[in-house]
Amino acid sequence: MIKRSARDIRRRNRFDALRCVYAAPGPVSRQEIATATGLSFATVANLTAELLDAGVLLEAGQENSGAGRPRATLAVNPQRGALVGVDISETFIHVELFDLSMTTRHELRHPLPERDSKPDEVIEHLVGLVSRLLEAARVPAHQVLGIGVSVPGQVEPEGGVSVFSPYWAWHDVPLRAMLAERLNLPLFLDNPLKAATVAEMWFGAGRGVDDLAVITLRTGVGVGIAVDGHLLRGATNSAGEWGHTCLVLDGRPCRCGSGGCVETYVGAPGIMRTLAETDPGSALLHPDDQAATIEAIARAADDGDEVALAVIAKTGRYLGAAVANLINLVNPQVLVLSDWVAAKLGERLLHVTREVAADHALAQAFRAVDLRLCALPHNPVSLGAATFALEGFLNDHEIFGSVASRRPTPA
Amino acid sequence: MIKRSARDIRRRNRFDALRCVYAAPGPVSRQEIATATGLSFATVANLTAELLDAGVLLEAGQENSGAGRPRATLAVNPQRGALVGVDISETFIHVELFDLSMTTRHELRHPLPERDSKPDEVIEHLVGLVSRLLEAARVPAHQVLGIGVSVPGQVEPEGGVSVFSPYWAWHDVPLRAMLAERLNLPLFLDNPLKAATVAEMWFGAGRGVDDLAVITLRTGVGVGIAVDGHLLRGATNSAGEWGHTCLVLDGRPCRCGSGGCVETYVGAPGIMRTLAETDPGSALLHPDDQAATIEAIARAADDGDEVALAVIAKTGRYLGAAVANLINLVNPQVLVLSDWVAAKLGERLLHVTREVAADHALAQAFRAVDLRLCALPHNPVSLGAATFALEGFLNDHEIFGSVASRRPTPA
Ligand SMILES: [Zn+2]
Ligand SMILES: [Zn+2]
Repeated sequence: MIKRSARDIRRRNRFDALRCVYAAPGPVSRQEIATATGLSFATVANLTAELLDAGVLLEAGQENSGAGRPRATLAVNPQRGALVGVDISETFIHVELFDLSMTTRHELRHPLPERDSKPDEVIEHLVGLVSRLLEAARVPAHQVLGIGVSVPGQVEPEGGVSVFSPYWAWHDVPLRAMLAERLNLPLFLDNPLKAATVAEMWFGAGRGVDDLAVITLRTGVGVGIAVDGHLLRGATNSAGEWGHTCLVLDGRPCRCGSGGCVETYVGAPGIMRTLAETDPGSALLHPDDQAATIEAIARAADDGDEVALAVIAKTGRYLGAAVANLINLVNPQVLVLSDWVAAKLGERLLHVTREVAADHALAQAFRAVDLRLCALPHNPVSLGAATFALEGFLNDHEIFGSVASRRPTPA
Repeated sequence: MIKRSARDIRRRNRFDALRCVYAAPGPVSRQEIATATGLSFATVANLTAELLDAGVLLEAGQENSGAGRPRATLAVNPQRGALVGVDISETFIHVELFDLSMTTRHELRHPLPERDSKPDEVIEHLVGLVSRLLEAARVPAHQVLGIGVSVPGQVEPEGGVSVFSPYWAWHDVPLRAMLAERLNLPLFLDNPLKAATVAEMWFGAGRGVDDLAVITLRTGVGVGIAVDGHLLRGATNSAGEWGHTCLVLDGRPCRCGSGGCVETYVGAPGIMRTLAETDPGSALLHPDDQAATIEAIARAADDGDEVALAVIAKTGRYLGAAVANLINLVNPQVLVLSDWVAAKLGERLLHVTREVAADHALAQAFRAVDLRLCALPHNPVSLGAATFALEGFLNDHEIFGSVASRRPTPA
């Protein structure tokens, strides 16, 4: 049973207050934070005092509030430190450096061959990229508050990672230990489903939303579910494998060993298969390049190409039915289609998905959901990975524990 | 955004402490509650003082604890009041009276015809049953702390109920108001998915489990999901409609308007359809009696009847794949197969379901789950409905608010 303490509430309130500062277009007053979060003014004053002490916030000026005294306004202090977000995908590694205001300072991308990559090779690339990233941005390592790494797999809370890739056969790889040995930084490891979701919770469509689902569409697919500001992780942190839920019993064989999984229809390789089935010799198909193929489908559809339009319609038919399953099961307020496949196929895929989902979902749950594309700039997964590092820093008991421990706890 | 307060923590701790008292085979000491819940002794002393004040607990004697002084032990006070649980199903109404120790004092069951029933008719039956129930048990209405009612539908938080039945066409029926007018008792309305789950959380396999899923198999099917002691309700309290997730794209038509839904294969009418397809003139089939048909299949299977065994194998194949979807998506610690269809088909159905789920689910998530049959006595839905009334009573601010409000709240 999870112990719930005053410290937990305090941490969640700290996250809420800070999310509100990030969300604001400019500096905000304590009163505005209180209004936006529903916390009392006294609580907000406490939380912001702590965040000012820790250098996370800074006084950003004054605002006139009509009759009374001008109010001090607060902003995130970008200079407090840097965060690194790493997105290890099956087809590329992307590293991104953020200042504490979560503005990108620099980024690097390295393609991976669409074939088996060994953990050692991937780690070698990653370490090299991070070191070049810090050099290029002229950020010394001691200014980095943490590094978040997303890997396309099942990340067990304590240790092992089983990567879930059509190319890689990583089973119980002790990736955390292997990375910790090479990177002398606070390390946070998770997968793209959870990274994309936490990015929406902090900086996107998930702010202030109690029932959120974020679908990641890339080589693999899956969902992140957040309830009342908390990621649903499950018993072994492997919740969200919607990509491996069965949509078509006895359908297309899947790399997971099962068949008819959602991913075999709406992941990038699944869409390529649909393209090959629709038009076997299609010039749109780049057999060894998922990104080029999806890009070609999107552009051809813009030009009215019938094959491309048929592939998007078929993909949307599968995606719509699978999205309806999530709507019926989870009943989210907001459901985001995220990641590069969703970004490339964009409004066209969203439109057909929404129509099909409306036919399959229960009316009440469908009416309640705001189904939309991810609006985050850049890569939601590297941003989310860096956000895990931000959360880790905000959970640091040496920085944020002392004040809380001096206060009374409720019975 | 949900406000989190010291009162919320306090209420959850109160629930945890009390669940621990219910779980114990006899009276328990404060120290035992502290150990079982992970709460501090001081917190438990506070909570139990409050529950003793409210008459929910009573001092039940002493236990010797080796060296030290004998410890006072506590038990639930059955005389504090009664709770009524009502299970309105498509084929019957079941009302059950519990004392506060959740022992059944009396129960009544009324069959409903397997055809359209109007809200007024159902309410008439219900009101009559409840009044006969209290009379038979000689419990005056003022001793009833609350009544929980489960209806097979989507219960909106404020008001409307859309019942989801093959026979009934209830849309936005203001059932709460209609019942409140007739029953002068604190009223708690929800559906069987959530009732069966809350029953497991308090009295069954869900005690102390952070990631729980409870599948209800009756005329309709669905799931209740509880994370960290909280039911997942979704944006409009309609989460859990796993029965209307698509398992077989373009499969059997479903009453929800979609096709290939899980329910069309594993709900009682779905199993009857599988029976009719397997052996069109089967003597096991009682076209207008679901319970008799499922019972006949179970008994025939016990006798080695090939048709019955084939029907259970086919049902388990669908159920196993659909259960694997839940395992992959939710990654529960415990997954319970509950309600009368699961009870009647029992171990035989569980066995084949588990084998098929093992083939379809991701290995890590499958290893983590304890898949089992409901072990609650009687009807988990009427018990769960009464449990909603118990929770409502325990949330009563007039009884439990005063102490909390005198204590400091954390920032
Ligand atoms: Zn799969
Ligand atoms: Zn359906």
